[in-house]
Order: sequence, then structure tokens, then C-alpha cells
Amino acid sequence: MKYAYLGPAGTFTEAALLQVPGAGDCERIAASSVNSALEMVRLGQADAAMVPIENSVEGGVSATLDAIAAGESLQIVAEVLVPISFVLAVREGITSLEQIREISTHGHAWAQCRHWAETNIPAASFTPASSTASGALGLLDPETHHDAAICSPLVAKEKNLKVLVREVEDHAGAVTRFILVTRPGAIPAPSGVDKSTLILPLSEDRPGALMEFLEQFTARAVNLSRIESRPTGAGLGHYFFSVDVEGHIAEERVSAALAGLHRLCPELRFLGSYPAAQGTRPFIDTHNSDSAFVESRAWVQSLKSRL
Amino acid sequence: MKYAYLGPAGTFTEAALLQVPGAGDCERIAASSVNSALEMVRLGQADAAMVPIENSVEGGVSATLDAIAAGESLQIVAEVLVPISFVLAVREGITSLEQIREISTHGHAWAQCRHWAETNIPAASFTPASSTASGALGLLDPETHHDAAICSPLVAKEKNLKVLVREVEDHAGAVTRFILVTRPGAIPAPSGVDKSTLILPLSEDRPGALMEFLEQFTARAVNLSRIESRPTGAGLGHYFFSVDVEGHIAEERVSAALAGLHRLCPELRFLGSYPAAQGTRPFIDTHNSDSAFVESRAWVQSLKSRL
Amino acid sequence: MKYAYLGPAGTFTEAALLQVPGAGDCERIAASSVNSALEMVRLGQADAAMVPIENSVEGGVSATLDAIAAGESLQIVAEVLVPISFVLAVREGITSLEQIREISTHGHAWAQCRHWAETNIPAASFTPASSTASGALGLLDPETHHDAAICSPLVAKEKNLKVLVREVEDHAGAVTRFILVTRPGAIPAPSGVDKSTLILPLSEDRPGALMEFLEQFTARAVNLSRIESRPTGAGLGHYFFSVDVEGHIAEERVSAALAGLHRLCPELRFLGSYPAAQGTRPFIDTHNSDSAFVESRAWVQSLKSRL
Amino acid sequence: MKYAYLGPAGTFTEAALLQVPGAGDCERIAASSVNSALEMVRLGQADAAMVPIENSVEGGVSATLDAIAAGESLQIVAEVLVPISFVLAVREGITSLEQIREISTHGHAWAQCRHWAETNIPAASFTPASSTASGALGLLDPETHHDAAICSPLVAKEKNLKVLVREVEDHAGAVTRFILVTRPGAIPAPSGVDKSTLILPLSEDRPGALMEFLEQFTARAVNLSRIESRPTGAGLGHYFFSVDVEGHIAEERVSAALAGLHRLCPELRFLGSYPAAQGTRPFIDTHNSDSAFVESRAWVQSLKSRL
Repeated sequence: MKYAYLGPAGTFTEAALLQVPGAGDCERIAASSVNSALEMVRLGQADAAMVPIENSVEGGVSATLDAIAAGESLQIVAEVLVPISFVLAVREGITSLEQIREISTHGHAWAQCRHWAETNIPAASFTPASSTASGALGLLDPETHHDAAICSPLVAKEKNLKVLVREVEDHAGAVTRFILVTRPGAIPAPSGVDKSTLILPLSEDRPGALMEFLEQFTARAVNLSRIESRPTGAGLGHYFFSVDVEGHIAEERVSAALAGLHRLCPELRFLGSYPAAQGTRPFIDTHNSDSAFVESRAWVQSLKSRL
Repeated sequence: MKYAYLGPAGTFTEAALLQVPGAGDCERIAASSVNSALEMVRLGQADAAMVPIENSVEGGVSATLDAIAAGESLQIVAEVLVPISFVLAVREGITSLEQIREISTHGHAWAQCRHWAETNIPAASFTPASSTASGALGLLDPETHHDAAICSPLVAKEKNLKVLVREVEDHAGAVTRFILVTRPGAIPAPSGVDKSTLILPLSEDRPGALMEFLEQFTARAVNLSRIESRPTGAGLGHYFFSVDVEGHIAEERVSAALAGLHRLCPELRFLGSYPAAQGTRPFIDTHNSDSAFVESRAWVQSLKSRL
Repeated sequence: MKYAYLGPAGTFTEAALLQVPGAGDCERIAASSVNSALEMVRLGQADAAMVPIENSVEGGVSATLDAIAAGESLQIVAEVLVPISFVLAVREGITSLEQIREISTHGHAWAQCRHWAETNIPAASFTPASSTASGALGLLDPETHHDAAICSPLVAKEKNLKVLVREVEDHAGAVTRFILVTRPGAIPAPSGVDKSTLILPLSEDRPGALMEFLEQFTARAVNLSRIESRPTGAGLGHYFFSVDVEGHIAEERVSAALAGLHRLCPELRFLGSYPAAQGTRPFIDTHNSDSAFVESRAWVQSLKSRL
Repeated sequence: MKYAYLGPAGTFTEAALLQVPGAGDCERIAASSVNSALEMVRLGQADAAMVPIENSVEGGVSATLDAIAAGESLQIVAEVLVPISFVLAVREGITSLEQIREISTHGHAWAQCRHWAETNIPAASFTPASSTASGALGLLDPETHHDAAICSPLVAKEKNLKVLVREVEDHAGAVTRFILVTRPGAIPAPSGVDKSTLILPLSEDRPGALMEFLEQFTARAVNLSRIESRPTGAGLGHYFFSVDVEGHIAEERVSAALAGLHRLCPELRFLGSYPAAQGTRPFIDTHNSDSAFVESRAWVQSLKSRL
């Protein structure tokens, strides 16, 4: 197995990849962007790619949501949750917050620590970095100007950087969700607590179109655990929805909802069913059990045999 | 073929039966009640029974609605519409409305002519008859007391009764719908303009149960052409619904709605799909066409092949 | 107070009227039909009328449902439940079931005892009577032919008739619901367990029209305790619905549902809010409490004050 | 009037602000972030702030969506659309794409031109800038390393930068929507083509909660023109929705939907009604017209007067 991931090495994404059983012993390729990690999979240069999809503070990762929604089909086979905590690393010689004039980090990390920074180092200006790791490494480079960086504890430790403050994130308990993506192939068997991911283009611009989609779920008691709207790029007011539902396509109620959605919107994309990283086995009432579906189909077939 | 029908001979029900191609040359058995006509079919004493199910003025015929909703299963294979118009027949010697002291007819006929009678013969008392035909025949019987009867033009003509007024019905244009009932067997092929009849017990006494049923229809754009509530006999507040929908079980949208209903209510009864006596081919949008259903099923199957 | 009721004296309807506090001491007028009882109220000849509206076995009483749905407006101010049980009274000289050749009763009573009669006196022919009381009184009349009658225990006792069998009804526990009707006026104050009655013409013949009505109730968690379809008289497929809902117009959720229905169907009729004869105080979630309505209105008003 | 806007000067946001009648002659304060622009308004340091809220390619502007959803209440009084087109500006001495080794721009601009860059300057590395204007100005600074910048045509022209390629955006026709925000106060009068913006916290984590919200709109035929999900910061799976609807709170159907939503979710925020920058007067059927609401309210009131 060969794995791509959103690099550089030492970021939270590599930490997520290392949670995949066996991945620590496999070849791991740091990609420069989500897009290029997924392209490696599409082109067969990697067997799977680990990319972030959702942060509990910042929301969906647009690059990932968009990249898997379009282009050649891909499949999600696993998800991994990684708790997110940041440290404030500083350049050699800095000993107090008051000395910091310029700080650098990735925009998403900045968004998660903005309030802390505005409160504690209000005089510091912000310089965006292409990743938290690159911002941190800049502290070792005499040609860069920033004297502080917000980064993962891991990078700070590995590069032996000086840490002035730990846990500078505004919301304790932040978590990022990562997904492991392959080319379409075998769907992982149901684990009992599963998730399915769909892309739903809103093909018609009319009142109630979103509600008609949702009715396909509620009519089978299929619960949504995530819904994100994204622009299609075709102009303001044109969206697709990226949706996670509780349940596995091997379950009748999920496959019935999928069939219903396909009738409303044949451009629908199914991105996979896979074990949920957290959650409990959903309660399914008798009207939506597998056997209720099987029996109702058998009943209709027995009637149709009289045609 | 042997036909039973709600007798006696000469009523509107026999007129309905005579519209069935070939029925004029077959054995026709006048039954004393809807129940006994249907029992003849259940017991194999008749191949089919013609019974009234709905009148455009008086509403559903309770005896028929109840008799086909319970007991051994039956099937509706055809429907027939008969325009209903009544005449006022009188006993020999009566020449004006003022002379009428007592009038007899069947309760349903009385209900359809009540306003006319209260206006035109306010002094006459009403004596119920077990059928319009028997009320009319009573005019020839010296032992009965009534001197007028409301009946079908046919009986008046066949028995040579004196007709004082024609078209005494309160609502011109009344129509009664009759159904031809057999034991369950081959379902008539779709004609393009078809109807399906269902019995839906409201198995749960909670808000929204009826709405959940209706949603199964609207979710597939299946139109209801009739809905009647009837008590189940288990106490006030316990109903079943007798429902006609536009379309044939051979159509995907109808069979999908049936499967959905069966999940909600496995006690559901399917009473048949058959050509509608009137109406136009329903408009079916692309999301509910047969091919949309077939394609969505094929799409889900192709995904499930990856399991 | 002067009361009209569906006569003759001694029927279940008079029994219902006698349950109204004080009615036993008032003038009671037996009307020959539901229509004439209601007309007495409309014309001011009576202050109120007691009429049957629903039987737990036979279903809605069409004459009443239709009479209060059209014509000059009326109002329901109370409902009364009367348990229904029938006796088989016979003519002097009859001592066993085998001797009975002809039996008479009202069609509705016959419908409720038909199965018993077909099983126990299969050879007897049925002659309809205009009321259970008149059929019973016929047993004392040498000019009538029937030798048995199905009637109320009350009439049998009052007229000293010979009772051969008691409780000949097919379903034990049958109940008839009666309503007390006045001209529109003061609405009875809420009792905590109330009912409201509506007439909903289905003004548009299209899929989903009934569902749109029901949504107005479910959107406010207003439960339906009865729904009956009736033909409007304008032809097959044209219905109005007679509906009872749990709750009183003084409650916000009920009046909000009424306002919503009026938007969909301005021809809607409100027939009154009155104490329910049975049932429990409905559970109302916080989103549908009176205070939720009042607060939401106040909130919107505060926003609109900025216009 | 004193206006704040997301700076620095010369970006698309200032262009949006200059479209506001009279703003060109007023004091304009460039804020370093969306948050600080809005804080100036909250603190009374500015009368209004112009900030971006949605890009037709990149989707919602998270910083703005989050900043107006929480904290002290604000109000949207206008929206402005600005077409977005980018140029590739280069450092003195660069004459061909092949020479470019490092390119800088703001992350959002980069997202909109990424495909062009990956295709046309695949060897160039990307350095994020804190704004398109600052990236462009870096080309004049000998201490920065990048030799190309993606920026607005305006900045390139004003600063006399060398433009190598115009319209480097991946999707022609991109538009950014900006909103003008004030403290809560007078709501702009209806223009006929209006919009209202709401924040809907999903207070309950259960299937159908989103659908119940949407039903409040569809029940009054209020169309949604935008819906965005955002994390609340309370953990994965907790969202609020930022929603734009067609129509003005002065319209009955809009205020009725607001009242209905407030019952379901009293934490709802109303962010204003204001003229839409584009669009047509919505079609309103008779059941949802102002007069239908007024009449239904009057009807219910007339009934309640009988209490």
C-alpha cells in the first residue's frame, strides 16, 4: 500500500494517517494540496489518500468537499478523528509575549486561535503560512521575519522549537475529521455503526427542492449527521450539498433513500459507506427495519405475479 | 360465467351489470343484500358480483365498503357508472300530488329525493322499502298502504306503472358507481387510464398517521380519486380508509407507493387495479416515470454489487 | 329552553337529550327527520336540537353530516355518548325464534344486528321501518305483518312488549354519539378536554390538497379525532371533509391551525368548540403551547416596530 | 456617516463600499479583519461596515457568517454585488510565465485561480498573502521573494504594476456578494424585490429538525435563496444555518414564517430585510398573499369574539 496525504510531514493529517492500521509501515507521500493528494489516487500513483474534511470549529474543508464532489469518482473507506491543540512556538531569543511583532501560521489554524492572539498579542501582525508546519520551520530560517508561529505540538517537539504557550486555541476540545479516500471499489462491510456520504446537486432552483431531498431521508428515518452547502461555481444561488447520513448502503432503509434520491436527482453521487469514528448504533423502528422492506417488496411482488 | 348482483331484478344494479360485455347472455342471480352477493362469489356460487360502491349524492355505500374490507379477500376487476334518475310512480286512481298520503322507496333513493318530496308532497308520510323495485311493486299489491313510490324508470316501464312525475331527484346528474368483484386472480392488464383500490387500517391512534399514509402517495405523485373513512367496529375513533388511486399496480410509482404503505401498515389490503370508467391518462413527471424507478433501482444495485 | 330531537319519542336520541342537564324539565319536540330538527333551530322554533352524528359500528350519520355542512350556519355546543344495545321484541304468541317469518326495524339498527339475524333467524325476511320505535309499535298493530322487531330496551319496557332475546347487536359495546346544535352564538368556555368541529371543502381537485390541509394541523400538533369524507353533490370525486380536532378555539394552536386552513380554503366552516364527552387532556409540547404562540407573535411585532 | 470595511484600501471590498450612494464622500476606515470591522460598528466607532459574505466560487465567507451569527446583534441594511476578475501582476524584469518561481496572493483568490496556476505555472510555489493587495504590493518590495501576484485590476493599475495575464480566474463570471451592516435600527422599507437573512441554530440533534424549519418556509411559499451550514464551535455535528429568504418582514408570509420558526427555535436571529441586489418580484399565490393572511386572522378573531 502507498498512501498520499496533505503534507508537509508532521501536520495533523499525517497524525491521522498514522492511526490507520499498518500505515506506519507503508510508503507515505506528502502532497502539496488536497487536490494533488486526490489526483495521485485517481492516477494510481497512490492507493489511498488521507485528507481533512471537517473541523469542529472552522467547519468543512472547502478544498476537500469540492475536490471529491467533482472530477473522476472516488470513494471514502474510513474516517479518523484527531483532537486539535496548538502551541505558540517562538524564535530563539523571544522570552515574553510582548516581544512578538509578527506571527505566522496557516489560515485555518489562525482562525482557531484568532481570539487568543487578539487578546494576548494584540500588537503582533499576522503573516499567513502555507501550512502550520512551514510557519513553524520558518522560525529556524534567518531570512523570514516572523518571530512566533502557531503549530502542532508534534512539530515543535520534533524540531526542538521553543514553546512559549500551550493550548492557544480559542475552543478547547476542537477535533478535525479526516477521510481516507480510494478509487471506487469494494465497499467496507457494515460495522453496525456506519456512515454514508453523498453529494446532492440542487438541480432545480425552486422552493422546496431541498425539502424534497430531506423527505427521502425522513420517510425512512435515516438521520443526517452532517449537511454542508457549497457553491457549484455556476453563480450565486447554485449549490450542491455534501451530506453524511447514519447507516450503510447494505441497510435497506439507506439504499431505499438512495434510490428515492436518484429519482429526484440522477446526478447524485454516492461517496461510500464506512465505519463511523464515533456514535451509537441508530434506533430503527419496525417500519424501517430491513425485514419491513424485504416483506413489503415480497408482498408487492406476489401481487404483481397476478399480472 | 355466472353473475350475482344486488337485486331485485330491474334495479340500477342490474342495469350496471348489463353494461358488462357478455353479461346479458349469462346467468344472473339477484341477491338479497350486498353481503350475500359477495358471499356467493367467495363460496364459488358465482364467478363475479356487481354491487354499488358510491353514489355521487349519498356517498359511499357502507355495506359494500365494509363487506370488501373484511372477510376473505376479493378483487375488483371493473367499474361501471350508471346515471341515476327517479320517477314518481303512483297507484291506480291517483291523479294529482295532493292525493298522496304515503310514499315508499328505499332509504338511499329517499335521501336523493327528500327535498323534492318535502316541497311537493309535504303531507305524505314515508314508509321505507327494502329496494326501489319492491316499493314500486307494492303499488300493485292491495295489501300495502302506500299510494306512491320513487323508483327507476326501468321498473316503472317494465311493470307498466303510472308515472306522475319524472326526474324527482334533488340533484340532476347523479351517478352511481358499481364495481364488479371476483375472487383474487389475474389482475386486468393496464389500459392507460386505471384505478387501484386499497383498504388502509389506521393501526395507530396518533397525530399524523393519516398524513404519513398520504405522503407515500404524494412522494410518488400518485393522485387519490376517492377517500372514505369507515369505522372498524372497534369503537368510536377507530377507522379504516377506503381509497382509490389513479394508476395501475403494473406502474412503478403505484407499486412503490404500495410497498411504502405496506411498511407503515402490513395489514393493508390491495383490492385490485382495473380500467377507470372515466378520467384521463395522468400526467407523470420524469421523477416518477417507470424508467426513473428502474434506473434508480439499477443504480443502487450497481453500488451494492461492490459490497 | 325548547329542544327538538330526532323522534319518535323513546328512541336513543331522546335518551341522549335527557342527559343534558335540565332538558328533562323542558319542552321536547320530536322531529320526523334530522333535517326538520335542525330547521326548527334555524327558524327559531327550537333553541337547540339533539341529533345523532356518528355510530361506532355504522359510521357517520350522513343526514346529520350533510345538514350541518350546508345551509344557514349552526353551532355544536355539546356532545353526548349513548351506549347502544338492542332487544328482539316479538308479537304476542311468538315463543321461539323458529316461528319468526318477518322482522322489522330501522335500517341502521338492522345493519348493526344483521349478522345475528342471518345466523339465528335465517328464514325471516326483513321489512324496513322508519325508526326502531315505529317497528316496535307495529307489533301491537294487527294490520302489520311482521312478528318481530329489533328495538331499544326502553321502548320494549315502556310499551310492555315481549322480549325474546337481549343484546342482539353484532358488536358489543357499540356507542352512538349525539350532538346538541344551536344557532351560532356564545362558544362554550374551554373545559380542558375539548373538541372542535370543522367542515373542509376540498376546493381543488389535485394531488396533495388533503395533505396540505392535514399539514396545517400537524404543524401545530393538533390531533384529529375524526375525519369523514362526504360527497358535495357536485359529482363523483367532489368531497368535503367533516373533521373533529382535539382542542378548543380559545387555544392558540387550534386558532392558528384554523387561520392556516382559512388561507388555503376560505370556504371552511367552523362548527364549534365544546367539551369532549370522553378523552384526556392532550399533551402539548413547548413549541405549540399558548405561550410559544404569544411570544413568537410578540417577537415578530417587536421586529416590525422597526419598520 | 463613517464606514468601516475589510481593508486594505484598493480591494474588492472597498469597490463594493464605493457603490453605496454617498459613501465616496464619507470617511472610510480600512479594518484588518471582518471581525474588527464589525466591532467598530458594535462599539459605535463606525456607523456601518461593508464586509464580504459570499463568493460565487468559494462559497460563504466563514469569518463574516460566524461574526454576525454571534455576539451583540447587528443588522444587514443592503447588499452589493461585485464582479470578480483577477490579473497576474509580476515583478519588474519578469517577461514570461516560465520565469515565475514563486507566486503570492490571498488564499481565497488562490482558490479561484488554482487551476489556472497549476496548468500555466506548474513549477511556481505558492506563498499566501494576507490580502490580494498586500501580495501585489510585495512585488515592489525588494525584501520579499515572490515574483508574481494575483490581484484585482484596480490595485495593479493604481500601483502601476506590470500585468502579464488578465482574467486568470478559473470560472469566468465570478461574483462576490458584500453586505452593509449596522447596529439594529430602522428596517429599510420594502422595495418589492427584497431579502431577509436569518440565523437558525439547530437546537435539537434529531432527524427532521432541519426539515421542520424548512416546512415553516414552504408552508407559506417563502423561497430560500441561500442556505449555509456552519459549525457552532460546540463540536462536530453541531451546526447553525445562515439563510436568506426572498421577501421582506413587512410581508405577511415572511413574518408568519418568522413567527413559526420562533416557536420551534426561540434562539433564532433575524438579521434584517433589505433590497435584493438582483432577482425578480416573487410570485405569490392567493393562499399566501397579504390579504389572505389578514382575512384569515380577521375570520379567527370574529370567531373568538364569541368566546
